[in-house]
Amino acid sequence: MTQELLGKPVASKIYTEIKEQLAEYPFTPKLAIILIGHDPASEFYAQNLVKKGKKVGIEVQKLLYDSQVSESEILDKISELNLDKHVYGIIVQKPLPQHFDESALNLAIDPFKDVDAFHPVNIGNMVLEQAGFIPSTPAAVLEMIRYYKIETNSKHVVILGRSNVVGKPLANLLIRKNETGNATVTVCHSRTASLSEVTKTADILVAAIGQPEFVTAEMIKKNCVIIDVGVNRIITDTGAKKYVGDVDYQKCYEKSSMITPVPGGVGSVTTAMLLKNILKSIKMTYER
Amino acid sequence: MTQELLGKPVASKIYTEIKEQLAEYPFTPKLAIILIGHDPASEFYAQNLVKKGKKVGIEVQKLLYDSQVSESEILDKISELNLDKHVYGIIVQKPLPQHFDESALNLAIDPFKDVDAFHPVNIGNMVLEQAGFIPSTPAAVLEMIRYYKIETNSKHVVILGRSNVVGKPLANLLIRKNETGNATVTVCHSRTASLSEVTKTADILVAAIGQPEFVTAEMIKKNCVIIDVGVNRIITDTGAKKYVGDVDYQKCYEKSSMITPVPGGVGSVTTAMLLKNILKSIKMTYER
Repeated sequence: MTQELLGKPVASKIYTEIKEQLAEYPFTPKLAIILIGHDPASEFYAQNLVKKGKKVGIEVQKLLYDSQVSESEILDKISELNLDKHVYGIIVQKPLPQHFDESALNLAIDPFKDVDAFHPVNIGNMVLEQAGFIPSTPAAVLEMIRYYKIETNSKHVVILGRSNVVGKPLANLLIRKNETGNATVTVCHSRTASLSEVTKTADILVAAIGQPEFVTAEMIKKNCVIIDVGVNRIITDTGAKKYVGDVDYQKCYEKSSMITPVPGGVGSVTTAMLLKNILKSIKMTYER
Repeated sequence: MTQELLGKPVASKIYTEIKEQLAEYPFTPKLAIILIGHDPASEFYAQNLVKKGKKVGIEVQKLLYDSQVSESEILDKISELNLDKHVYGIIVQKPLPQHFDESALNLAIDPFKDVDAFHPVNIGNMVLEQAGFIPSTPAAVLEMIRYYKIETNSKHVVILGRSNVVGKPLANLLIRKNETGNATVTVCHSRTASLSEVTKTADILVAAIGQPEFVTAEMIKKNCVIIDVGVNRIITDTGAKKYVGDVDYQKCYEKSSMITPVPGGVGSVTTAMLLKNILKSIKMTYER
């Protein structure tokens, strides 16, 4: 019997944890999110953060800029937020207008407020198994692993995708020496030869390539665990819009022992993990 | 016919390159190496650096401390070296006496002078494919790959070992999107199940576990490329001391298409790559 790994109970648990722990501090922490241009997906994401933040006691402040704004104005704003004692997290939402240097903005954010974990020092600390922020999608995957007691020790995890925000950090996290690590990890990508041969050896398959329903039943081993990180918007035969993952859920369901749905799987936990980083930021501030 | 991949011609090429390029600058750059206690291996290593540095035009300055020295004295020295315009690289040689916090020392070194690439910001930049220093052993492996034109694109590389200085950085480097990357990479370690099954799928096997002659012919695929990063001192049956790698060279030689010997392989290139980081440091200073 296949177990469907839902994100909702995992997220609920995290939100409760954040709310309870934040209640111990005599202030309302702020998370600043800089939005440049008017990307509908980004605005939707920010609005959701505002709502979820309110629920747990975090004030999410949207800072809206026209796409014509100069990089130096944004850098000045980041410097100001870096110094603002009430701000515990700073996000510069992507995509950015063409005239921006994404890396310069990532570097400008104080690593102690870098809740998206885009700063190299946070990525480096993650690799070196030191304290710091972890990007929220890989953190959500680890949280699912923890919640559903998925054994990673000595298991072969195959990761499809080598992005800076999912594939690479996750590979580094899963080889760490801890209870959600100690896996044998293989990273596959667009250049991988005989991909199916590799994916068929996976005890745990993580798909993060952004290709709708790419993973089929023929590509997996019986009773493997499937963690689907992809979120792709497609148009169905009837012309309706819908979201699907990188895995063909219908076809892989029976063959797998555990599988995350899309929507309703890892994605539901990501925002919770991002907000949990605000709690981490507060703790780091008081421990510094 | 198996090809033996010698490190010497690779190192010679690098030394020539460093010397030629350094000759364009009107000064002699310094590399400071802090040695605490009197570890014979560390002193031997430092002395070799002095010698090799002299050959290419780098002044390697040994700073010797008694094992009783306080951490704050070392931190003060690092601060001084960080500000010294003549110093382009700072190394704190390991192992350190027990009362030292290794991570604190790594963090104290200016990332622009961190030629060992132990600072998290350099590790993070490496993962994110940004400019920065790369640890010298993984850099030496990449240099061997480049020199001997070993194809990595679409190949399956199996790395034995997940250390911060070799296994982890190398895994991140080999999945990068460049001419020494684009490999499908698997990281194995002490917790890996059915290790031989995994190593037998390797087109390129990198051994970095520090276990003398661990890899035997039964563990490898015919015609694979073997890169041996291990350096282990053993006592032979006749009581003599000798250095061997993590691979049983005699037994794996015939079956492999290319193999690095120990000594005389990767190890010979490591010091060259470290000194090349001084050149990189100079370039970064003038491009900052």
